[in-house]
Order: sequence, then structure tokens, then C-alpha cells
Amino acid sequence: MKAALQAYLDCYNASDLDGVMSLFAENATFEDPVGTPILQGVAAIRNFFINAMETPATLSLSAPIRGSHGNAAAMAFEANAGQVTVRAIEVMTFDDNGKITDLKAYIGPSDLIRA
Amino acid sequence: MKAALQAYLDCYNASDLDGVMSLFAENATFEDPVGTPILQGVAAIRNFFINAMETPATLSLSAPIRGSHGNAAAMAFEANAGQVTVRAIEVMTFDDNGKITDLKAYIGPSDLIRA
Repeated sequence: MKAALQAYLDCYNASDLDGVMSLFAENATFEDPVGTPILQGVAAIRNFFINAMETPATLSLSAPIRGSHGNAAAMAFEANAGQVTVRAIEVMTFDDNGKITDLKAYIGPSDLIRA
Repeated sequence: MKAALQAYLDCYNASDLDGVMSLFAENATFEDPVGTPILQGVAAIRNFFINAMETPATLSLSAPIRGSHGNAAAMAFEANAGQVTVRAIEVMTFDDNGKITDLKAYIGPSDLIRA
């Protein structure tokens, strides 16, 4: 699961949309940021990433990825897009095939920093 | 909510059990680490912290605390206890009174580092 989180960062940074999407289960749920409407299914999630990748950004870990004793892992990272940095923690839950079934992104209004 | 997460660290580091417990709602749920049985209610959670505080540890943030657009916040931190360091991400959900209703700690077996 930690490898999947690292692959998520690497694929995102390579603008590899298919690579990012290959990590998700067909009916995955996706809440980014937490407190906004939850997307369901790979079609909706793909649209999210198509839009997100229109703004070039580099994601870098703030600390080593954390695992769990269950089917989840979590990471703190920053997304740097020119003069804007977004601080995030994402928690991902996995199925038995190692695919992401749920992603939650903890990002608040005060986690968007303008240089 | 970010202030509550900071208070959690500060009270823990001060071995202030009552201070930690004052952050929780009466019927809070508590999964530490994720994948182990979920505790419910302040009596069970208090017992958890009584046991935890028997091993002196210092908690320090790995990166700034993250918020959300909803009723949750998250933080990445390390717990240093002598020759052992535990890397964690905790996600907390809050009620309208600012009390924690759910805590999930993402810590895997490989997140325990021996110096």
C-alpha cells in the first residue's frame, strides 16, 4: 500500500493520467478535499485528475508514508504549483487486489499558501 | 480543529491525561492503530492513554497540521520514546462543540523505527 501511495505521487508528477487511474478500483470513492462532494467511480475520478493536471504541480512528501495494521495507508505531502503550495494529508483504503477503494484528502482553506 | 490537534500533542507531552481527555466527546470512537479493535467512549479511551503514558514519549509534528473543508483535521507526527520512534498520521473528526468524535491513527509495523 505504501508503494501504491508512492506510485500515486510519481505518476502524478509525470502527468501520467493512466498510471494514476490504474491505482483505483472501478467503484472507488474520492473526497478531495474532505468536506466537498464525494466522487464515485473511475470516470468521475478521471475527470478530477484531468482538471487537476491542467495546473502543473509537483507533489513531494513532507514525511515518510505511514501504513496501518489494516487495509489503509496515509501520507503528508505538499503540492507546489508556481507561487502556490498546498499542504495535504491523504488517506487511502485498499481492496484485496491492492486497488484504492477510497481516497480522502485533508486540505483546509489555511493549507493553501501563496509565496 | 487544528488548535485541538496541537492541544492533543501539547497535553500528551505534558503527561496531562485530563487535558487529553477534555478533547474527546463522550461517545468518541478511537482506532489506534487502524486495523486494530475500535475503542468506544471516554472510559476506554482514558485507559488507552493511561497505558500509553506509562512509556514516556515526546510527540513532534513532522509537518504543519492539515485541516479540511468539513469537520476533520489531520497531522503527521513522530513519537520518540528513547530508542524507538513511531511515525504516525492521525485523522480526527469533530462535533459541533469542537470535541473529537473519532480518531484514527495510521501506523504500520514498518513505521516503528529502532535507533
